[in-house]
Amino acid sequence: MSRIDVVAIGNALVDVLSNESHEFLEAHHLVPGAMELIDTTRAEQLYAAMGPAVEISGGSAANTLVGVASLGGSAAFIGRVADDELGAVFGHDIRAAGVDFRAKPAGGGEPSGRCLIVVTPDAQRTMNTYLGVGSLLCPPDLDEATVAGGKVLYMEGYLYDRPAAKEAFRAAAKIAHAHHRQVSLTLSDSFCVDRHRDDFRRLVADEVDILFGNDEELKSLYEVESFGEALAAVRDDCALAAITCGPQGSVIVTAEEVIKVAAEPVERVLDTTGAGDLFASGFLYGHTHGLSLAECGRLGSIAAAEVISHVGARPLVELRTLI
Amino acid sequence: MSRIDVVAIGNALVDVLSNESHEFLEAHHLVPGAMELIDTTRAEQLYAAMGPAVEISGGSAANTLVGVASLGGSAAFIGRVADDELGAVFGHDIRAAGVDFRAKPAGGGEPSGRCLIVVTPDAQRTMNTYLGVGSLLCPPDLDEATVAGGKVLYMEGYLYDRPAAKEAFRAAAKIAHAHHRQVSLTLSDSFCVDRHRDDFRRLVADEVDILFGNDEELKSLYEVESFGEALAAVRDDCALAAITCGPQGSVIVTAEEVIKVAAEPVERVLDTTGAGDLFASGFLYGHTHGLSLAECGRLGSIAAAEVISHVGARPLVELRTLI
Repeated sequence: MSRIDVVAIGNALVDVLSNESHEFLEAHHLVPGAMELIDTTRAEQLYAAMGPAVEISGGSAANTLVGVASLGGSAAFIGRVADDELGAVFGHDIRAAGVDFRAKPAGGGEPSGRCLIVVTPDAQRTMNTYLGVGSLLCPPDLDEATVAGGKVLYMEGYLYDRPAAKEAFRAAAKIAHAHHRQVSLTLSDSFCVDRHRDDFRRLVADEVDILFGNDEELKSLYEVESFGEALAAVRDDCALAAITCGPQGSVIVTAEEVIKVAAEPVERVLDTTGAGDLFASGFLYGHTHGLSLAECGRLGSIAAAEVISHVGARPLVELRTLI
Repeated sequence: MSRIDVVAIGNALVDVLSNESHEFLEAHHLVPGAMELIDTTRAEQLYAAMGPAVEISGGSAANTLVGVASLGGSAAFIGRVADDELGAVFGHDIRAAGVDFRAKPAGGGEPSGRCLIVVTPDAQRTMNTYLGVGSLLCPPDLDEATVAGGKVLYMEGYLYDRPAAKEAFRAAAKIAHAHHRQVSLTLSDSFCVDRHRDDFRRLVADEVDILFGNDEELKSLYEVESFGEALAAVRDDCALAAITCGPQGSVIVTAEEVIKVAAEPVERVLDTTGAGDLFASGFLYGHTHGLSLAECGRLGSIAAAEVISHVGARPLVELRTLI
């Protein structure tokens, strides 16, 4: 029997957030709402230009696992941090949230990863990720017993920007399948899909049992104009896909079924960051507890609704009290 | 002529905040609402017990300077950070807020200071300060040109918990007075006053031109029961005192005058932390710009009102737009 509901591989990141104007985005050549990987020099320049900031643990897959734990599920995270203070912050926060995270801090001189997030007055976040030691994640980092012990393996598409991580993905999927576990992937970002479309398509067709993403990412994956075409394509490729459509809710598809799930009503949307991450939390919690696909989608909507009703990409209340 | 309005000596701290129950305070023997200095072992234990946290730059005198800069004044900070990530965060945030901070990160193996803050459901903050490398602040850290260049020297009472810092205070006051500058002190915390009453009284009587504090701290300083007695005592001791009384506003006293200043109305008080720090910002900005004592108090009230209307001890808007 599996000890763990969801095991995830992702970028271990601490978010560094400051409020800036739209002119700031232009001055620093930032694409509004996108995620970009940046190197050390660019990270230093951008941080120096940013105003006073707040630090809070993040990382897309890490956020999803925190949501799974908050719903009452068990979760384990695989990712790299360095032996420094931001690494300690990331480790403290994810463990304090109830997620298993055992990686020893890695040496090698690279610092822990961080995501410099510029928040504009329209509440949009533009993300600039400096992966640091996280960029060195590679197949030997995968603890086979951990991967084999999870009912579902969850992988973050953002990792695809690093060649070594692609190998780690394939290796992890192989381990999971060898132990009759399911493999899931989130597409993460339509720009990321753009950069690695062919690799993503191969991975989805060959290895992925459950695909997560939003409507834009799915259209980008299959290079089609309409959401209907994208859904048809994914039903051919993948046993199960759960696709979010913002305020329109989500659509869950298999070869046999198309299930539409309404979004949970939210009094006031304050910050949409983490909506997709937390939708995946609810869906995966339901899926690993034997619920119907419609119920999985409903739990996803509830978890997403909580996280968009406040600033920050991790839940502020115990999600198990909401379901 | 002075290049700088306010030069401050204080603890360089990054706040680490988590939400906990009252039972958490009891289980860890924490005195609600107090500030306590903790050592490495205790800091590690307490952090391990705390839930997921947020990091944000703090430090009482540093908050005051950020307020002075936000009002349009010039400010410089003297304090110690290590060459680590929390030190970089502290330095980035205070500089990004417009405060001059030139100290080279100090070696010696101690990390940068942090304040582990437990926020209970009554919105009260219980502070546990691990000073780290900040505990090594000593007279040689004082840059004479910086101290001599400020119209007012501002010192944080919290530093009195460290013997070497007491010497640094006396040395800084001597430099300031030798250059015909004014010396100000904030009492910081009534527990801190309790611990160092005699030293504080000597400092106030001998060196302090402007004393900041609240009604409780002032009563503790003079060991009297009534606020009236405390005011009478400070008028004997000190040329000028600006004492805050929470929602009752503040009282500014000299040998000749007693001026009552109303609190600025606030729609909803969300977090009173930083109220005293920001009152000092407004008062010192006014004082270094030649305003009347009543006007100085009014600016203090406006700055304090902004900071208690949101979570966090530094202003979220440019204070100069409010005055």
